[in-house]
Amino acid sequence: MSISYRRIKRVLFGEPFPTRAEMHERLDKVRALAVFASDPISSNAYATEAIMTVLLLMGATALKLTLPLALGVMTLVLLVVFSYTQTITHYPKGGGAYMVTKDNLGTLPSLFAAAALLIDYILTVSVSVSAGVRAITSALPQLFPYSVELALFAVLLLTWINLRGVRESGTIFAIPTYAFILGVLVAVILGLVRLFGIFGAPPPVPIEHPLPSFAGMDSTALGFLYIWLLTRAFAAGCTALTGIEAISDGVQAFKPPEAKNAAKTMVVMGVIAMTLFVGITFVATRLNLVPYEAESILSQMTRSITDGLPGGTVIYGWVQFFTMLILVLAANTGFQDFPRVSSFLAHDGFMPRWMQNRGDRLVYNSGIITLATLASLIIIVFHASEIRMLPLYALGVMLGFTLSQQGMVRLFNKIMRLKPGETAETNVTTIHYEATAKYKRFLPMFGSVVTGVVLIALVVTKFTEGAWIVVVAIPLLVMMFRSIRHHYDVVAQELSIRNLDPDELQQFADVAIIPMGDVHRGTLRALSYAKRFSNNVRAISISTSPEHRERLLRRWRRYPDVTHGIKLEIIDYEYRDLLTPLIDYITEVTTVEYPDKLISVVIPEFVPDSLFGHLLHNRTADLLQLRLKNLDNVVIIDVPFHIHEREATEVG
Amino acid sequence: MSISYRRIKRVLFGEPFPTRAEMHERLDKVRALAVFASDPISSNAYATEAIMTVLLLMGATALKLTLPLALGVMTLVLLVVFSYTQTITHYPKGGGAYMVTKDNLGTLPSLFAAAALLIDYILTVSVSVSAGVRAITSALPQLFPYSVELALFAVLLLTWINLRGVRESGTIFAIPTYAFILGVLVAVILGLVRLFGIFGAPPPVPIEHPLPSFAGMDSTALGFLYIWLLTRAFAAGCTALTGIEAISDGVQAFKPPEAKNAAKTMVVMGVIAMTLFVGITFVATRLNLVPYEAESILSQMTRSITDGLPGGTVIYGWVQFFTMLILVLAANTGFQDFPRVSSFLAHDGFMPRWMQNRGDRLVYNSGIITLATLASLIIIVFHASEIRMLPLYALGVMLGFTLSQQGMVRLFNKIMRLKPGETAETNVTTIHYEATAKYKRFLPMFGSVVTGVVLIALVVTKFTEGAWIVVVAIPLLVMMFRSIRHHYDVVAQELSIRNLDPDELQQFADVAIIPMGDVHRGTLRALSYAKRFSNNVRAISISTSPEHRERLLRRWRRYPDVTHGIKLEIIDYEYRDLLTPLIDYITEVTTVEYPDKLISVVIPEFVPDSLFGHLLHNRTADLLQLRLKNLDNVVIIDVPFHIHEREATEVG
Repeated sequence: MSISYRRIKRVLFGEPFPTRAEMHERLDKVRALAVFASDPISSNAYATEAIMTVLLLMGATALKLTLPLALGVMTLVLLVVFSYTQTITHYPKGGGAYMVTKDNLGTLPSLFAAAALLIDYILTVSVSVSAGVRAITSALPQLFPYSVELALFAVLLLTWINLRGVRESGTIFAIPTYAFILGVLVAVILGLVRLFGIFGAPPPVPIEHPLPSFAGMDSTALGFLYIWLLTRAFAAGCTALTGIEAISDGVQAFKPPEAKNAAKTMVVMGVIAMTLFVGITFVATRLNLVPYEAESILSQMTRSITDGLPGGTVIYGWVQFFTMLILVLAANTGFQDFPRVSSFLAHDGFMPRWMQNRGDRLVYNSGIITLATLASLIIIVFHASEIRMLPLYALGVMLGFTLSQQGMVRLFNKIMRLKPGETAETNVTTIHYEATAKYKRFLPMFGSVVTGVVLIALVVTKFTEGAWIVVVAIPLLVMMFRSIRHHYDVVAQELSIRNLDPDELQQFADVAIIPMGDVHRGTLRALSYAKRFSNNVRAISISTSPEHRERLLRRWRRYPDVTHGIKLEIIDYEYRDLLTPLIDYITEVTTVEYPDKLISVVIPEFVPDSLFGHLLHNRTADLLQLRLKNLDNVVIIDVPFHIHEREATEVG
Repeated sequence: MSISYRRIKRVLFGEPFPTRAEMHERLDKVRALAVFASDPISSNAYATEAIMTVLLLMGATALKLTLPLALGVMTLVLLVVFSYTQTITHYPKGGGAYMVTKDNLGTLPSLFAAAALLIDYILTVSVSVSAGVRAITSALPQLFPYSVELALFAVLLLTWINLRGVRESGTIFAIPTYAFILGVLVAVILGLVRLFGIFGAPPPVPIEHPLPSFAGMDSTALGFLYIWLLTRAFAAGCTALTGIEAISDGVQAFKPPEAKNAAKTMVVMGVIAMTLFVGITFVATRLNLVPYEAESILSQMTRSITDGLPGGTVIYGWVQFFTMLILVLAANTGFQDFPRVSSFLAHDGFMPRWMQNRGDRLVYNSGIITLATLASLIIIVFHASEIRMLPLYALGVMLGFTLSQQGMVRLFNKIMRLKPGETAETNVTTIHYEATAKYKRFLPMFGSVVTGVVLIALVVTKFTEGAWIVVVAIPLLVMMFRSIRHHYDVVAQELSIRNLDPDELQQFADVAIIPMGDVHRGTLRALSYAKRFSNNVRAISISTSPEHRERLLRRWRRYPDVTHGIKLEIIDYEYRDLLTPLIDYITEVTTVEYPDKLISVVIPEFVPDSLFGHLLHNRTADLLQLRLKNLDNVVIIDVPFHIHEREATEVG
C-alpha cells in the first residue's frame, strides 16, 4: 500500500527534489514576472471600469474625470513600486510587510500586517478565480449553475500546479501572462492609431444608460457627495495595487543576485501594468465608452477598435480569451505569497510549525493546501460571486503597504544616524551608511500617507458592504498568532533541558498492565514481552458474563509456561462500554499505587494486512490507546500480531 | 475533556442501562404494536391509491377492479401474517427470514434473504421519511426547496430517538400510531353511514382526468396489456406487505412469554391494517374517487365524507396530520429491524463483529447509525423523492417472504417425520411432534408461491425504473458477507492457540531504536526507559543540515549520565520527508539484522493537554506510528511527555 501511494504521488507531483536542488528551482526574471505579476497586470482587465462605474453615479460627464483619476492611481502605483525596490534592496532575504514591520515597528504591528496580508491573499484567490469563471459563464451561460463547482475545480487545478513546484508553475503561467500583455498592447496601439485618423476613426459604441438625478439637493450636500464619490472612485481604482507586495516577499525565489533581479522585475512589472492601465483608460475615455453590466470596458474598447479591420476578430478573440485566463491565473499571486508569509510566521512561532516544512518539490505544501481550503470556503459561502467579495478585498493590502512603508521610514531614520562608511545590524538585516537616505525616505513617507488615506476610504466606503468582516477578522487572527506563540513558549520551557536533574528521568514503576479480552496468540505474545522487563505483570480482563469468565480461565490455565508469575485480574462489569472499567483501573494504579511514576501498559493488537480487515474489527486497541494518551504517566506498548490474510488463504 | 463528553452523552441519550436491565427495557403489546406496526399500518395512506393509479391506465371504468384487487392483497397479507405466527411459535428466539432460511435452506439462501431485507429496511427509512416530508411540503410549499434537508433532519431525529432505547421509542410512537388508526376508522365508519343515506349522501368529488386510448390495438395485444396492468396493479398494492417481517425478527424485544405476545401482536396488526385497507378501498370506490396528483385518495375520501358535517374539518385535519406523522414514523420499522438483522449476521461472522455490540441503552448503536447513514445517502441521491425510490422498494421484502416461507415448509416436513411425543433439535430451535403439521404447511406453501409470483412481477414491471439496482445489489452484498466471513475465519485460524509452541512467543530481539529529532526532556526520558530493558539502545536522528547535526551532538554530550552506553546514529538526508529514511533504517534492522524477531521502537512523544496544542505540532510521532504499524515485527513503545499548558502558565 505504501509503495503504490508513493507511485501515485510521483505521477501527480513529480520526482522529489533534494534540498540542494533549491537553487536550480529558482526563477529567472521572465518566469518570475509571469508568476508574480499576474495579479497586478490582470487588474487592467477591470481597474478602469471600476473607476468609471463610480463616476457614472455623478452623470456621464463625470466620466471625463476617469483619466485624471487613473493618472493618480498610476502615480501611487509607481510610488509604491519604487518604494518597494528600496525595501527589496535593504531586505534581500525577503522584505514583505511582515518582515519590514517586525524589524522597524515591532512585533504587534507586524502581526497586524501579516494578518491583513494573509486575508488578502486568500481573497485574491477567491476573487480572481470567481472573476475568471464569470468570464467563462458569460460566454457559455448554460454553465452558470455550475459556477461554484467550476471555481472549486480551478482552485484545485492551481493547487496541483503549485504543489508541483514554483519553477514549473512559472513555465505554465508565462504564456497567458505575456499573451495578455501583447494583446492589450496591440489593442491600445491600434486604438491610438485609429484615434489619430489612420484606417478611419473607430465607430462609436452607442449605449443607453439611466442617469442619476440630484435635483433638489442643496449645494453643500452635493459638494460632499461629489467628494465622497471621487474618493470612492479613486479607492476603486486602487485595486490595481493588489499583488505588488508579492515580489518583495518572494525575493528568495529569484536566481542570484536575488535582490537585484527582484527589484528589476518589480520595476518592469510596474511599468508594464501602468502602461496598459493608462493606455486602456486613455483610449476608452476618448472613445466615450460607458460602463454597463453586460459587457466590460475592455471588451467594448477592443471590439470598437478592431471593428472593420482585417483580422480584427482575431485580435478581439485573443484579448478576450487571455483576459479570462489571466484572471484565473491572477489567483497564483495568492498561491505564491500566502505560503511564504505563513512560513515566515511559522518560523517565528506565530503559526503552526509545520507551515514552514517544505514538501517533495520544495514548496510549502501546508501553506498551499491551507490557502486552497480557505479560498474554497469563501467561494462556497459567496457562491462564486466576485462582486460580493470585492468589498472585503484590497483593505489588507493597503494596511500592509501603510505599515511596511512606515517601517521603511524608520529604517531610513536609522541609516541617517550612521556615520559615513559605518555599518549596523538590525534584527534581520544589515544597514550601511547612505548619503541620500535623507531624501530617499520621502518616497515611503509620502507613499504611506497616501495608502493610509486610501485604506481609510476603503474601510469607510465599504464597511457595511462587507469590509467589517475584515476589520473584525484581522484582530482575531492577531490574537490567534499570539496564542500559538504562547503555546510554543510553554512547550519549549517544559522540554528545556536547562536545570534538568537526571533522576527526574528515572521515575519508572516496575509494573506492566496487559488488558486482555481473550487468550490467543496475540495476547500470549504480549504477556511474554511484558515479562521481559517487569516482575509485576498483571493481565486485566473485563468480564460481562460468567461464561466469558470461565472460558478465559480455562484457556489461561492451558499455557502455564507463559502465564506463570503473571497475576490475572478479572473485573466483572455490567455495562457494555468495556474501556471505562479498564481506564478506571489504570488510573487507580497511576494515581494511588504509583503516584508520580510512569507505568507501562502493554496492548496486544492484531493488525490485519488490509484496509478491509481493519474495518472489521472492534478497534478496541486503538480506542484504548487514544484514551490512555489522556492519562499522565502511562507508557503505551503496542505489541502487534500481524494477520497475513493472503498467505493464510494459500496455506489453509 | 473525557468527563464533559460523558456528560453530553448522558444528557442526549440518558443514563446507561446495566446489561441485566434488558428485561425491563422490553416492550408490552401496546407499545410493541406502535413500534413494529407503523410501517404496515401507514401503508394504508397510499396502498389503495397505488392500485388505482395503475388501473386508471385502462380507463376510469377499470377502477371498479380496485376492490377485488384490494381483497386479493388482503388475503395475501393475512396469509403471510398467519404463516408468520407459525414461524414465531417455532422460532421464539427470533424468526426472521434470515434465521428461518439459514436453519432450513442453508447458508447461501439465508444470505440472499438477509441482503434483500437489509436493502428493504434502508429503503423503508428513505421512502417513509421522504413521503412524510412531501406531506409537509404539500401543506407548506415554501419549504419545498428544503425537502432534502428536512428529510435528513427527520432521519437524525429518528436516529436520536432510537439510540435512546427501544422502550422509550415505543412510548413516543404510541400516540401517532393509535391516533392515525382511530382517525381513519372514524372516517371509514362515517363514510359507510353516509353511503347508507344517513346525514345525507356525501357529495361527489368531481375530477377531470385524461383517459388513455387503446384504439388501433389488436385484441390479443390488448389482452396481454390488460393482464400486464392487472399484475402491476396487484404488485403495486403489495406495498401493504412491507414491514410485516419486523415482528418476527424482534420476538426477543417483547416481554415474556415472548413468542406468544409477538404472535398476538402480529395478528392484531394484520387485522387492523386490513380493516383500514379494505375500509378505505370500499368507501373510496363507492364514492367514485379517481386518483390524481395534487390530492391523495385518503385526503379526497376524508374531505368528501366530512363535508358539511359539524366538526368535519376537525376529523379531516386529524386524519391529515396523523397521516403525515405516521408516514415519518413508519421509518421506525427499518430502525427496528436493520440493526437486529445486522446483529444476527455479525454474530455469524457475515457482518463486522462490532455490529452486535449493544450501546449504553442496550440498542445496537452501530446498526442504527449505519442504517441512518445509508438511508441519508439514498435521500440525497434521490433528492428526497419517494416516487423515484418506490421502484426499488418491496422487492427485498418479497424475496424474504418467499425464502422464509419455503423454509417453513421444510421445517414442517421435518416435523412430520417425528413420531408422536418425539422432540428434535435443528441448528437453532427445538421441534416437537405436531399432529396438524401436515395441514399447517399448506399455509406457507401457498404463501411462498404467491409472494414468489409477486416478486417476479415486481422485478419485471419495475426493472428499468430502478429495480435493477436492487437485483444487482443483492448478490454484491452476499459477496461482501462471504468475504467478511472468510476474513474472520482466517483471523481465528491465525490466532488459534491450538498447536502453539510456547517458544514461538519468545522471539524478541534485544534492540531498542529511538527516533529522535532533538535532545530534550521528552527524548531523554525515552532513552532512560529504553535502557531499562535493552542492552542495545540506538538513538537515530535524521540530519538535514550540518547545523542541526552539530547542535544535536552538543546537547547529546551534555547528559552523559543518560546517553552513556547508547549508540547515536545520525543519518544525513537531503529530502524533507524525514520519516522515509527512518522507516528504511528500521526495516533494515527487522529484515536483515533480526529476521523473524520482534524489535522495539521507542517513540518519545510529547502530548499537549489541549486540542489546540495538538494541532500545532508536526504529529511526526503519530505518523511514524502509523507507518510502523505496516511493518511486521515491530513493537511500538510510546513514552509520553505531557505538556501542562495551564500549570506552566501559572508558574511561568
